[in-house]
Amino acid sequence: MERKVPIGLSNKHIHVSQADLEVLFGKGYQLTPMKDLSQPGQFAAEEKVDVVGPKSTIKGIRILGPVRPQTQLEVSIGDGFCLGIKAPLRNSGDIADTPGVKVVGPVGEVEIPCGAIVAARHIHMSPEEGAAFGLKDKDIVSVQLDGPRGLILNNVLVRVHPEFKLDMHLDVEEGNAAGARNGQMATIL
Amino acid sequence: MERKVPIGLSNKHIHVSQADLEVLFGKGYQLTPMKDLSQPGQFAAEEKVDVVGPKSTIKGIRILGPVRPQTQLEVSIGDGFCLGIKAPLRNSGDIADTPGVKVVGPVGEVEIPCGAIVAARHIHMSPEEGAAFGLKDKDIVSVQLDGPRGLILNNVLVRVHPEFKLDMHLDVEEGNAAGARNGQMATIL
Repeated sequence: MERKVPIGLSNKHIHVSQADLEVLFGKGYQLTPMKDLSQPGQFAAEEKVDVVGPKSTIKGIRILGPVRPQTQLEVSIGDGFCLGIKAPLRNSGDIADTPGVKVVGPVGEVEIPCGAIVAARHIHMSPEEGAAFGLKDKDIVSVQLDGPRGLILNNVLVRVHPEFKLDMHLDVEEGNAAGARNGQMATIL
Repeated sequence: MERKVPIGLSNKHIHVSQADLEVLFGKGYQLTPMKDLSQPGQFAAEEKVDVVGPKSTIKGIRILGPVRPQTQLEVSIGDGFCLGIKAPLRNSGDIADTPGVKVVGPVGEVEIPCGAIVAARHIHMSPEEGAAFGLKDKDIVSVQLDGPRGLILNNVLVRVHPEFKLDMHLDVEEGNAAGARNGQMATIL
């Protein structure tokens, strides 16, 4: 069986804690869902913030909801270069010893002591999808993307969870390196 | 024999014709070499220009010398998105039916009717290096880059010429997708 997976490209974005959200947008503030994302319950919010690094500010970075226990900024290596930070390659949630930045909202601002990462590429799938593919949580696979800029990505982490749905998350630089579009199908080798 | 090749990462840059150079910088102007590039005779110039697209301007794009028959802007897909142009994937020199932009220098400005491309990845090598690798001009190879973001690039064009020296040219997005650094070694498979 060919194991096909859709590609989801992630532009720079930020996840925020409820505490930080309230500093940025006001006491008791709730995110406003704008658009559902591929993973059930996850959404792009209407709200955006500015992120200030030592070298520059990137304006209008979108918040993805719902709120999380920790604020986490996900950027490309190129975005990190612009900001003047060296965000390391990490799996989501693993933010110990990562650079901090200043986050500016319409009501207030927060200096996060850490939280800026380059998200490691990964594939979300449900246990049923994992079983059909012969894959389990934390497996590492290689994935082929076709086209004029065709390539094979090694070291792709498989994440299996009942709340996940089949989707491979790449950042914009990975997507552009492959000339890939959102929703294009790739093949797990 | 393992076929190892150093990686050279190209940021956005522009090649200019002598005629356009003189409009941008003044009659009889000559480029000022700042730094030699990997290919013999090629150099990064002191001179920079601003490039104006329909959506935004990118300031301070470096000119690479020497002058060429045609002005050619090389950007990443992300740069093209910023400028608001859809620069296609092309080999250097193949600029028919590509987007134009406005180029602004300290003395004048030029509307180039075409010339904006995303450079297709390629490996420069001398005939001797080609012979040692069992490769000839226009061969297409796959190249492996190791590391946490390790990947295999397919569709890499081999360019063999007496004035070339072994170096694989990737753009910044391809380099970042692999977590690669300038000068890192890759393996032709």
